[in-house]
Amino acid sequence: MSAKSKRKTQRTKPARTPTGDAWLFTPGPLTTSIAVKRAMLHDLGSRDEEFISLTRRIRERLVRMVRGAKSHVCVPLQGSGSYAVEAMIGTLLPRDGMLLNLVNGAYGRRITRICEYIGRSVTVLDAPESRPIDPAAVDRGLAADPSITHVSLVHCETTSGILNPVAEIAGVVARHKRSLLIDAMSTLGALPINAGAWPLDGIAASSNKCLEGVPGVSFCIVRHSALAGCAGNAHSLSLDLHAQWQGLEGNGQWRFTPPVQCVLALDRALDELDAEGGVAARGRRYRENCRILVDGMRKLGFRTYLEDRDQGPIIVTFHIPAGGAGEFERVYEGLRKRGYIIYPGKVTKAETFRIGCIGRIGPAQMRGLLAAVRSQV
Amino acid sequence: MSAKSKRKTQRTKPARTPTGDAWLFTPGPLTTSIAVKRAMLHDLGSRDEEFISLTRRIRERLVRMVRGAKSHVCVPLQGSGSYAVEAMIGTLLPRDGMLLNLVNGAYGRRITRICEYIGRSVTVLDAPESRPIDPAAVDRGLAADPSITHVSLVHCETTSGILNPVAEIAGVVARHKRSLLIDAMSTLGALPINAGAWPLDGIAASSNKCLEGVPGVSFCIVRHSALAGCAGNAHSLSLDLHAQWQGLEGNGQWRFTPPVQCVLALDRALDELDAEGGVAARGRRYRENCRILVDGMRKLGFRTYLEDRDQGPIIVTFHIPAGGAGEFERVYEGLRKRGYIIYPGKVTKAETFRIGCIGRIGPAQMRGLLAAVRSQV
Repeated sequence: MSAKSKRKTQRTKPARTPTGDAWLFTPGPLTTSIAVKRAMLHDLGSRDEEFISLTRRIRERLVRMVRGAKSHVCVPLQGSGSYAVEAMIGTLLPRDGMLLNLVNGAYGRRITRICEYIGRSVTVLDAPESRPIDPAAVDRGLAADPSITHVSLVHCETTSGILNPVAEIAGVVARHKRSLLIDAMSTLGALPINAGAWPLDGIAASSNKCLEGVPGVSFCIVRHSALAGCAGNAHSLSLDLHAQWQGLEGNGQWRFTPPVQCVLALDRALDELDAEGGVAARGRRYRENCRILVDGMRKLGFRTYLEDRDQGPIIVTFHIPAGGAGEFERVYEGLRKRGYIIYPGKVTKAETFRIGCIGRIGPAQMRGLLAAVRSQV
Repeated sequence: MSAKSKRKTQRTKPARTPTGDAWLFTPGPLTTSIAVKRAMLHDLGSRDEEFISLTRRIRERLVRMVRGAKSHVCVPLQGSGSYAVEAMIGTLLPRDGMLLNLVNGAYGRRITRICEYIGRSVTVLDAPESRPIDPAAVDRGLAADPSITHVSLVHCETTSGILNPVAEIAGVVARHKRSLLIDAMSTLGALPINAGAWPLDGIAASSNKCLEGVPGVSFCIVRHSALAGCAGNAHSLSLDLHAQWQGLEGNGQWRFTPPVQCVLALDRALDELDAEGGVAARGRRYRENCRILVDGMRKLGFRTYLEDRDQGPIIVTFHIPAGGAGEFERVYEGLRKRGYIIYPGKVTKAETFRIGCIGRIGPAQMRGLLAAVRSQV
């Protein structure tokens, strides 16, 4: 083989993670560390004291992360983050309750769909996908309808990557003495969430986003005083958060077989979050990833879907340039061959694509991705 | 150190699996192979073609395992086996349907509880926990109540380890032109299930029992013609099997984040099942495990809860000898210290304890356990 062709081969060799995988620029599942994956190389008895203390430790760590140690409990749940959101709505919203659902994307719309499935009354406050929810509109909505008992909000709508002003909205909801439930799927671990200072009754999240664990286990962090009154609310045995909590408080065990290996991975992922310097440090890394991505893509001629002031550090939505969806598929495949997997397909109503900034990735991976994009356009 | 004390140290060193864990004699999660666990050392994009084809392959393999390739589809689901049972009942039993639930243990009772939660009509045919369901009683029950549309049965009730006569009951249900749904959680992979010959409309199972995968992913294998008419039945967005199926048939993707690593482990576990010689060979290994266990425990003075003719090869229930529950806790701890974890606590109404025969264990582990039991009694 000539030196020239050898160099060419090296140039086109795809990028790979330490475990030989493509790098993921997706909003979870995402690239996790080797140590997080290696934590799964064990089998534990799910009713044995070793797993019981593992569960207890994780529950305590997650509650502390949102500063809820005095007021909140963490209830882990088998399944994806959407299961946790459905469990939170189904358990905390009583059958005669009324939910004001604040919607500016697909995950907000999913909460409406959950209410339709489970037979709960819901009224929707809609905002454009490119705009954050306006606290003043929430204020007006709550003032106008005293039948509303609960409010739901997606903290970061990964449909677009937009950040909603959760602290301000929490203040409005508290002033109206209603109960606030948030979907913090894509923020917990990277953005500060203060269940103690903000009046949050429920927070749903999962292991495989900014906590950098693997998918398969989700959880809700719930105000103790709210959850205690929720016996009999749930529409589903499996998704009954109150019953799950009672089981855990009783003998420390999950009611049904837990995803043992996913829980082991989450424990290790929480160690790594601590080692990185906690939520503030992780948020800084993601913001830097996001800054490199946005700057680089703009240099390549791409336009972001959101205004910079509304952009969260989790995932960035770009307009698809002229050429449309077919052109995007070609670029997606080209990036894939180079070892970079971005999110395939759009969720916004506009013609867009998305690139995630989260997971065990840093500046080197963001620059590698940008170089690969450059080679495709 | 003297030769004597050294020998003593060696004798009391606990048994350990190749990954350094205690051996599990529990009905799932159980001891899996190293290769199954190592299959989880990867991160895949859940909407990328690699994961889409992995999902397709697993669905096809599971349908073939129950000889349902022409008639049935496999719908995988995030969560534990109980989630799959709830999804099967909630999706296949219409809101105006009536379920005859055949119950001789805790898992049968759980199906009744699911119906109460989700608001489906259910009538129960109860049998003692120590006796299999009698097909003649099912025949009489169906003849007496024409409002019954569906029948549910737990194939192996791990409450006791009893095997229910599913083929005979399937014949009775078919003669009455009703629909049969089975919980095959603890049998699929080790006992033959013939969805083609037996008229089964639904089979719920999970990865972490006789398939020897890890917990976190479950599935239903459903008759295509039955599932096709089930749009709008489900009580839950997350547990809507019809919608999950439609998503998979549409773009090959799970609707919500799948437990990627658990699915990778399941694929590898299915490879190992094939390599072992399939369901017949695995059943033989478990029966041999069971025989060694029962013979050995009887020699130590323990009595089995079930008659031999009703005993399945999955898990064995023994009476707690004089001394009662406190004595059992001492023995459990003693076994645990020696590296053998049995099921802690009882599920039957009688005072019993259980030891599982499934997972990546064979005669050597069964004999090691028996030696450990001998040292405790």
